[in-house]
Amino acid sequence: MDASVTPLRHGGLSLVQTTDFFYPLVDDPYMQGKIAAANVLSDLYAMGVTECDNMLMLVGVSTKMSEKERDIVMPLIMRGFKDCALEAGTNVTGGQTVMNPWCTIGGVASSVCQTSELIMPDNAVVGDVLVLTKPLGTQVAVNAHQWLDLQDRWNRIKLVVSEDDVRKAYLRSIDSMARLNRTAARLMHKYNAHAATDVTGFGLLGHAQNLAAHQKNEVSFVIHNLPVIAKMAAVAKACGNMFQLLQGLSAETSGGMLICLPREQAAAYCKDIEKTEGYQAWIIGIVEKGNRTARIIDKPRVIEVPAKEKEGELW
Amino acid sequence: MDASVTPLRHGGLSLVQTTDFFYPLVDDPYMQGKIAAANVLSDLYAMGVTECDNMLMLVGVSTKMSEKERDIVMPLIMRGFKDCALEAGTNVTGGQTVMNPWCTIGGVASSVCQTSELIMPDNAVVGDVLVLTKPLGTQVAVNAHQWLDLQDRWNRIKLVVSEDDVRKAYLRSIDSMARLNRTAARLMHKYNAHAATDVTGFGLLGHAQNLAAHQKNEVSFVIHNLPVIAKMAAVAKACGNMFQLLQGLSAETSGGMLICLPREQAAAYCKDIEKTEGYQAWIIGIVEKGNRTARIIDKPRVIEVPAKEKEGELW
Repeated sequence: MDASVTPLRHGGLSLVQTTDFFYPLVDDPYMQGKIAAANVLSDLYAMGVTECDNMLMLVGVSTKMSEKERDIVMPLIMRGFKDCALEAGTNVTGGQTVMNPWCTIGGVASSVCQTSELIMPDNAVVGDVLVLTKPLGTQVAVNAHQWLDLQDRWNRIKLVVSEDDVRKAYLRSIDSMARLNRTAARLMHKYNAHAATDVTGFGLLGHAQNLAAHQKNEVSFVIHNLPVIAKMAAVAKACGNMFQLLQGLSAETSGGMLICLPREQAAAYCKDIEKTEGYQAWIIGIVEKGNRTARIIDKPRVIEVPAKEKEGELW
Repeated sequence: MDASVTPLRHGGLSLVQTTDFFYPLVDDPYMQGKIAAANVLSDLYAMGVTECDNMLMLVGVSTKMSEKERDIVMPLIMRGFKDCALEAGTNVTGGQTVMNPWCTIGGVASSVCQTSELIMPDNAVVGDVLVLTKPLGTQVAVNAHQWLDLQDRWNRIKLVVSEDDVRKAYLRSIDSMARLNRTAARLMHKYNAHAATDVTGFGLLGHAQNLAAHQKNEVSFVIHNLPVIAKMAAVAKACGNMFQLLQGLSAETSGGMLICLPREQAAAYCKDIEKTEGYQAWIIGIVEKGNRTARIIDKPRVIEVPAKEKEGELW
């Protein structure tokens, strides 16, 4: 499960909790703080928990930053983290800061819940479909963006992508990573989701396999479609086996929800999330009878997700 | 306050939470894990909370360890952490592990409490006395022990301390740091403690000042006695201004509780903790009328705390 659930001594309540910390991967400290908070919270949302009661922040200030760098960068990271917590309707009430060779940012998210607020991620049934709420390819986009300044690396991908494509994909991935999965979690209740997880370090397939392994029923997940940030599938292919994006193994940071929904509710779920947030969600696969595994079909359909999805500016 | 307290949506309950992580300071990985867990939990105990509902573990595996070192050291650290949680009547149900240049170990401790379980640390009154439940000098002992292998450093202190003294002090400090402050917290309720904090990185005086600053009444804390692990006061003196142990500023790891108790209850508190745990506690100062500050008197009495306090072996 994405978060720990501990039955409490009081009134049928449970403590739902998660912790995570990260090394920076984008060059905007404020957005990095938001991304870290969104990713920490995402584990609660995967359990259907939409009300976070409290957050703590974990900060590692790099010993390799100059004093000036620290004084500019760290407050921005921390402000991003706190602003994202506010956006999620919660507060950062404590935490710890240490010196560390590498800069780190992360935290703890906790909620004390009635059982009814939780969606235990083990009730998928044959006939369900799989929905994904954010596009894949954040790691590819972040790396490609770094390669704009590395001639060798850039040469490997410049035949399939322009500088402008890479910049757009990078901004799209920042926007995606900083976006909360809270609406996705709320709608999971409305549309009777049977199980969910958030897609992060193990990639889409890794998390799908983990979710499948924990199902009560004898089911398997089959993935047919891969929504990917525009051009990033081509970049991944040009890099050979480096990312394994189309194998579903490219790491994502603060990725979307992967949700098992009743077939007749899934389209309405996707429509509702688009109406509420202005972002698309996709039906990407089905739940079959099986032995609790997950796979991607041969030659899955790649859905190119445009960099500019919403009206107006990127954010 | 040592832990964050968040009122919850349910039945007058509060979420009490704290997080901390540490760089190893002793050469026994298992004991290092215990020390980290004891230190994380200590912040709950300082608030009078004796029941921890859940712990999470935060692990940084050093990128500089060989694979063999990792496979031996990290499981021991994690086992120590978990065993200490069990000793505290709680469980480690999740967490995160990352690679990091420096090895780190820490975690999160959470409790969902009735208000009556909490002792808010702001009710000291004139006439209270200050009690300390563990001796000072852990950092001095840990450093002196490292210096056994550093000729230069050792030469600076060898006139005031023997190798055997240093080894004993080091073992005593490991035992002390790994000891839970849980009994100390339980007895705070029994003997009507008015305020408490745990002594860690800012040293005795630093934490006393912080506690004094948060009092509702116009009080100040005056410290007369400094219980110090045997010979460590002499070592600290021989090192000039390095530790500032007798100024109350030497950092402690997983130090004792500093408690404001009604004068007439303090002796009984100390006697009870000794009966229950086999460890001494000390009345170290008084609460006077004042402007919410803390100080140590000129020439405080140093109480030499023998390395072997309990009957039998050190642990």
